[in-house]
Amino acid sequence: LLQSNVLSKFPLYMLVLGHCLFMANLFRAVYRPFWLAGLVLSFFGTFGGGILTAYLWATPTTLVFGSASNMFVSTHVVCWWLMNYSPGDFFHKLFNLAIPFKVFCACASTYLRVNLIIDNIDACLSKFPDNFWAPIFIGIVSGSGGKYISDAAQLLFMPFLERPAPELLVPTAATVSAFVIASAHLILVHGLAIVPSEVSAALVVSVFLAETVTAQLFMPLNWTTTLYRYFRFVLN
Amino acid sequence: LLQSNVLSKFPLYMLVLGHCLFMANLFRAVYRPFWLAGLVLSFFGTFGGGILTAYLWATPTTLVFGSASNMFVSTHVVCWWLMNYSPGDFFHKLFNLAIPFKVFCACASTYLRVNLIIDNIDACLSKFPDNFWAPIFIGIVSGSGGKYISDAAQLLFMPFLERPAPELLVPTAATVSAFVIASAHLILVHGLAIVPSEVSAALVVSVFLAETVTAQLFMPLNWTTTLYRYFRFVLN
Amino acid sequence: LLQSNVLSKFPLYMLVLGHCLFMANLFRAVYRPFWLAGLVLSFFGTFGGGILTAYLWATPTTLVFGSASNMFVSTHVVCWWLMNYSPGDFFHKLFNLAIPFKVFCACASTYLRVNLIIDNIDACLSKFPDNFWAPIFIGIVSGSGGKYISDAAQLLFMPFLERPAPELLVPTAATVSAFVIASAHLILVHGLAIVPSEVSAALVVSVFLAETVTAQLFMPLNWTTTLYRYFRFVLN
Repeated sequence: LLQSNVLSKFPLYMLVLGHCLFMANLFRAVYRPFWLAGLVLSFFGTFGGGILTAYLWATPTTLVFGSASNMFVSTHVVCWWLMNYSPGDFFHKLFNLAIPFKVFCACASTYLRVNLIIDNIDACLSKFPDNFWAPIFIGIVSGSGGKYISDAAQLLFMPFLERPAPELLVPTAATVSAFVIASAHLILVHGLAIVPSEVSAALVVSVFLAETVTAQLFMPLNWTTTLYRYFRFVLN
Repeated sequence: LLQSNVLSKFPLYMLVLGHCLFMANLFRAVYRPFWLAGLVLSFFGTFGGGILTAYLWATPTTLVFGSASNMFVSTHVVCWWLMNYSPGDFFHKLFNLAIPFKVFCACASTYLRVNLIIDNIDACLSKFPDNFWAPIFIGIVSGSGGKYISDAAQLLFMPFLERPAPELLVPTAATVSAFVIASAHLILVHGLAIVPSEVSAALVVSVFLAETVTAQLFMPLNWTTTLYRYFRFVLN
Repeated sequence: LLQSNVLSKFPLYMLVLGHCLFMANLFRAVYRPFWLAGLVLSFFGTFGGGILTAYLWATPTTLVFGSASNMFVSTHVVCWWLMNYSPGDFFHKLFNLAIPFKVFCACASTYLRVNLIIDNIDACLSKFPDNFWAPIFIGIVSGSGGKYISDAAQLLFMPFLERPAPELLVPTAATVSAFVIASAHLILVHGLAIVPSEVSAALVVSVFLAETVTAQLFMPLNWTTTLYRYFRFVLN
């Protein structure tokens, strides 16, 4: 539980900053030639899980209309500009050289993602009790909503782009790991009820932070994808 | 009114089972190679009228978040798996041989569709009285929302697919029959006020069940499409 | 302030009539061969700003479900039919010959657009105070939502169409002028607080009506696009 404690000591805006930088770096290759698409669609890509969940519950997204929206949007705008258009491409080069900082950003991204999945599952169960499909669905959307929105937006507005198949046709670790996190939390906390929600959160965060660090420094482990390969057998 | 009385004696989950099997059979050819797209998009295709209407009214869809969602989603998941991936394709072959059962499934589908159109029109008129466009619009969306969602999803995610033109460009019986059902109900119950809502429902259900049985056993009558051909004359 | 006073003397339905005719004329070339797409998608194109804003706030759109929806939808349906399918194409030819009436329609369109932007910004600030990104975002969506919806719908349903690049990839005066109107109003009324909301509205309406008249009678001024060219320098 060490790692999750370390990251949770950071104030929220530091974690959001790390997440925004990490995502801006990912989206740079796709959106750099189109500034408005980059500004808008990478916002949906960065915060897509929260946005999609809000509208599935038919509430305005707190990322734009909530009390912390100034912080969320400002951080996104600054990171988007720095990563794409800083003079001499200075910031982008620096970011990809400062490996420890990049690992911190990847961890912040993972930390926020796992916590969003877990928080939304808990919220779903308290809003709509006795449903077992809704929390799984909400967990997966919270964890990979950004990928689904990016897929749809890129297929629609940039059909000329060379890109991998959309998540819905060929599911990747984005969907599978969200499913694993959602299932683990649902079984541990709400099914077997052997741990309280915070302990499950710390446990799941630790496992996925360890994977993130390994993936950034050495190589992707993709253990969720291995799990998925077994599951694929029932679909032939 | 015989037929509608027979079907309404079935408990809801039997009708949902029939509807899900009928739709899973329709979507099989499109989605079978892509399990996640099949699971998600055929859910939107099967229950699209209810889902679209819910979000037009800015409420979370009861199909995922409502009290009966366990039954709806579970039935869909089981039917989807059976129809697509049962060993030796056993279930799919059986379904297409058991003609009387297939006719029952088609009738369940029609019965649920007509009742959804009628229920949503009545709900629309009680929520938003004095509007005459809103109930027509809601009726059409309730009756053919699944087609619109499927069209959009297939055009977006599967552009490589050979498929007929989307409903919006070349309207078919899906839109036209929803319009006829909505108009009939609006005129009989809310315009002329010559019958109460339940009688109109029974009447419309009977007519469309008769058409469904004929279409399944002999050939499509497409009488709504004939009506449509006259209406087309004002659009040239 | 002369012009805005003149137009505001017209009853709302006259302004809506002008706006609907102006938009129906714009969309005619695209949608005429597909009547259902034309009826539905040009409604979203004509009233897209209001519709998108409503769903961003997770409320049903008043254009279909509000108390004035009969007037809005009926006007749209009549204008759509007249402009596309009147016998001998009589109405379409007449409209493009009656220059003063066409200028009135363009002005009605501009007047409603500017007022929608301003009203929605004021509503956003009273619903979600202390947010500065939300009103800018809402202002831009209110002023160019129809363009975004049309872009998406045409890319999705009519990929065979020869058309300019979508707004999101190559922003035009639609987005830029909405941004200028939103910024002017936010700075004058809510930032510097030097004028009340109505005065700012009258001022902004006058400027943009003057531009509309010039553009219709002589040539587009595109002064917002010139502003935009300077702004583009920070994005290279």
